[in-house]
Amino acid sequence: MAKGREVELTGWRARGHEIIYEADTPAGKAFDVALIWAILLSLAAVMLESVQSVEARWGYELRVAEWVFTVLFTLEYLLRLACVSRPGQYARSFFGIVDLAACLPTWVSVVIPGAQVFLVVRTIRILRVFRVLKLAAYVSEAEALMRALRSSRRKISVFLFALFTIVVVFGSLMYVIEGPQHGFTSIPRGIYWAIVTLTTVGYGDISPQTDLGQAVSAVIMVLGYGILAVPTGIVTAELVSAAPSVSGQACPRCSVEGHDVGAVYCKACGAKL
Amino acid sequence: MAKGREVELTGWRARGHEIIYEADTPAGKAFDVALIWAILLSLAAVMLESVQSVEARWGYELRVAEWVFTVLFTLEYLLRLACVSRPGQYARSFFGIVDLAACLPTWVSVVIPGAQVFLVVRTIRILRVFRVLKLAAYVSEAEALMRALRSSRRKISVFLFALFTIVVVFGSLMYVIEGPQHGFTSIPRGIYWAIVTLTTVGYGDISPQTDLGQAVSAVIMVLGYGILAVPTGIVTAELVSAAPSVSGQACPRCSVEGHDVGAVYCKACGAKL
Amino acid sequence: MAKGREVELTGWRARGHEIIYEADTPAGKAFDVALIWAILLSLAAVMLESVQSVEARWGYELRVAEWVFTVLFTLEYLLRLACVSRPGQYARSFFGIVDLAACLPTWVSVVIPGAQVFLVVRTIRILRVFRVLKLAAYVSEAEALMRALRSSRRKISVFLFALFTIVVVFGSLMYVIEGPQHGFTSIPRGIYWAIVTLTTVGYGDISPQTDLGQAVSAVIMVLGYGILAVPTGIVTAELVSAAPSVSGQACPRCSVEGHDVGAVYCKACGAKL
Amino acid sequence: MAKGREVELTGWRARGHEIIYEADTPAGKAFDVALIWAILLSLAAVMLESVQSVEARWGYELRVAEWVFTVLFTLEYLLRLACVSRPGQYARSFFGIVDLAACLPTWVSVVIPGAQVFLVVRTIRILRVFRVLKLAAYVSEAEALMRALRSSRRKISVFLFALFTIVVVFGSLMYVIEGPQHGFTSIPRGIYWAIVTLTTVGYGDISPQTDLGQAVSAVIMVLGYGILAVPTGIVTAELVSAAPSVSGQACPRCSVEGHDVGAVYCKACGAKL
Repeated sequence: MAKGREVELTGWRARGHEIIYEADTPAGKAFDVALIWAILLSLAAVMLESVQSVEARWGYELRVAEWVFTVLFTLEYLLRLACVSRPGQYARSFFGIVDLAACLPTWVSVVIPGAQVFLVVRTIRILRVFRVLKLAAYVSEAEALMRALRSSRRKISVFLFALFTIVVVFGSLMYVIEGPQHGFTSIPRGIYWAIVTLTTVGYGDISPQTDLGQAVSAVIMVLGYGILAVPTGIVTAELVSAAPSVSGQACPRCSVEGHDVGAVYCKACGAKL
Repeated sequence: MAKGREVELTGWRARGHEIIYEADTPAGKAFDVALIWAILLSLAAVMLESVQSVEARWGYELRVAEWVFTVLFTLEYLLRLACVSRPGQYARSFFGIVDLAACLPTWVSVVIPGAQVFLVVRTIRILRVFRVLKLAAYVSEAEALMRALRSSRRKISVFLFALFTIVVVFGSLMYVIEGPQHGFTSIPRGIYWAIVTLTTVGYGDISPQTDLGQAVSAVIMVLGYGILAVPTGIVTAELVSAAPSVSGQACPRCSVEGHDVGAVYCKACGAKL
Repeated sequence: MAKGREVELTGWRARGHEIIYEADTPAGKAFDVALIWAILLSLAAVMLESVQSVEARWGYELRVAEWVFTVLFTLEYLLRLACVSRPGQYARSFFGIVDLAACLPTWVSVVIPGAQVFLVVRTIRILRVFRVLKLAAYVSEAEALMRALRSSRRKISVFLFALFTIVVVFGSLMYVIEGPQHGFTSIPRGIYWAIVTLTTVGYGDISPQTDLGQAVSAVIMVLGYGILAVPTGIVTAELVSAAPSVSGQACPRCSVEGHDVGAVYCKACGAKL
Repeated sequence: MAKGREVELTGWRARGHEIIYEADTPAGKAFDVALIWAILLSLAAVMLESVQSVEARWGYELRVAEWVFTVLFTLEYLLRLACVSRPGQYARSFFGIVDLAACLPTWVSVVIPGAQVFLVVRTIRILRVFRVLKLAAYVSEAEALMRALRSSRRKISVFLFALFTIVVVFGSLMYVIEGPQHGFTSIPRGIYWAIVTLTTVGYGDISPQTDLGQAVSAVIMVLGYGILAVPTGIVTAELVSAAPSVSGQACPRCSVEGHDVGAVYCKACGAKL
């Protein structure tokens, strides 16, 4: 708990904290909305910059916009550091790192110009939108989905491992059957093909040519088609069992909720509902 | 409520309203059936006209048919305006605009000939079928589906935003890994590829060539395959919880609810329902 | 009920009916098993005959096998006609027509040689396997699936019509956006592309080339991906509501089954369970 | 039960059994973890060896690693034989054969050098991971999935047979419609295409060219898209009905069952559970 130096927030810092970190006040809400727009616009600028024809025509304007957003995000990052009681803890948190990653690449590109990889890192700015959403009404919905996924974590692990086994076995098999002359140049490439097929993506960049290879493919396709039922079944079962087969009624004595539709007595305290 | 001038319907107008807007009388039903046929035939004519070989041989007949349908739909539109108590409100409603869009393009094409875009607009005539269906028995089924979709609106928003984040991050990543020489000419194109892959469509017009690119693709494919479980789970859970497996009846003696559809005695106290 | 001339079955005919139409006796079971093998082998022969290299080497043997199967199936058809009390009704029934279609094409090919289309009709022999299965233990499972599909018939109709509307609107749109030079040569072809994309098949024989076309494609892909949840949800909800949330217990007084898990009194007669 | 000669385990053999076959002791756990790493590393070595460029550079090191793993797995196999009370039964069991197959190919390749097929057999080493998982906490989750699949075994059989019928009928149909000049060179190839399309894989190596062929394709695509709902529905319904949303506890006063997990009072009579 006590990691990082704690700073007491007074005056403009307390006010800043209210605006930046909370969404209850009009100023806080306005800040959030402005931030989402800034993030989305800066994201659009990064994307457009990568398009050759746009870059050729609007390159200067995009670079100006990029610097405006970078300065804004850098100011925001410094403000966040200033208006939080434990700056060290914030800087090391997931969103602290994302916030830094949102403005750092542009500054770095001044020192090491033309480092394309660094500039693409800016697209992770999109992750910052999640922070704003965290404050919004969507949080309970997202949590319901996350809970369903988390409580079926183990079933999904078993499923993924079974999937991995199938693609390894079928990928190796096809490497032997089809061989390098039909595009299956190695076992990893065979596994890549097996994943493309099992997930029903089916690019067609590598496809079986021999009769035996096509027969084996048919098996893996039907398998993949059927296996798709398993994760769906897992997640659905979780969501169904979490869904209101319970009434919205609260106990008049102990206020416990979540009673079965049709229950007569409170299941927690025994009072008549 | 009071927007638009209200007209009282008497005489042929009241009769017209009954036939055009309602489906209870034999005349009303006959009108609906005739309308569906006219819509579907006019749609077929529009489609056939776009086929070069058919156009070359039957071009004249198709143009005649098109004018017949256009005149019919224009008459219908004028009748609808005449036989409704608030013509202004109708003209501004969704179906009012669709009805206008069904006949306008052909008239416009006289003034501005060869405007292909305008002619294709005519395919939105298909939306008019929904109006007729609105009066039919399918409405409750469609409503059950819409309700399930609407009540999972927020979960679906969260899901779509997560999807968007995944394709942006993976699209940018692949742009860096594969680069323009393998078809990933810009970040938006990388995102297009990510959507094609994540949704398991897999055209194969752009596909990863490098080893690292194929490995990252494998991850996004399995991800897309698994993620598909989420919207399915959401909609299914809604439909399951909405499905009437229990009747709404309560026991007259003990007030227990949740009896099976078709139960004769209360399952909790044995009283006759 | 009384359609077709009724024949009383005595002697060998009654015995034949028992063997051919029923599966309770050892002879009846043996007949069914032999029939399934004959159907599957004749199907394999039809398929192999269509393969050029096999036909070149084993053509004579396959033609002999074909005639053996045809004679067998013809004899079986005549026997079925002889051993049923209403031959006319049988001949007009679905399986009566399938049985005739199983042997007729080969006889016809003697008169009109080389009529490939007629020979391919023989593959509908596979439908005959369903008749044998009808007598087997799988019938209740198949019925559960059919019931789920039938009771969601209307929801599926609404869904299919919505699907049809989407592909018509998007197919027309892409015809305008991409045009004939990118493979979208007509509206029907645009609709074909929309179906290939919406169902996530994605051949890649036609794929969008322009930026706007790719953006619209992305929308239809995500739509198709999400829409897939709807039929799955419909069928699953039906199967779930039909599944045993009821106990296997029968009422000791009236033998009614299908009580809720946890029911205390019989819901049909009120006796204590 | 008494098949195979039984050997009493004492001294180092009893200790070995504890380490190799059980996972309760620290030594047993360490052995399992080491084994998983050895299996995964040997698998990586087999895969890398099949990549031409890696083989050219690291061929010697990979062959050395391969021999180290082979010797290790051979020793493990001999130890397993020595530390089990019924060696004969173990040798004939599924995992006994897999264990032997994990080390045999490399030894065989000394006698018959260059037998590529034998070397690929080594990838089935991955199946050995399942043995280790069997001892872990994932077993109950895997069992829940297997149970759901097993209890819907019959429904899945009916479904697969219906699938088979559809692809045979549509495959033959397309062979007639499209013919050899568009890639449909035989009925089996037509069936291969039908499977590729129905499962929504869609390679695009064979795709319909004629208008009629594209119309028939559209039907099979929508069919395949909708049919996907059936296995998903089956598995989900099983998982939902198996999910413990109600406890197995009965009310001590009124014997009502089906209480919520965590309920304290009976929902039907109010007695303390």
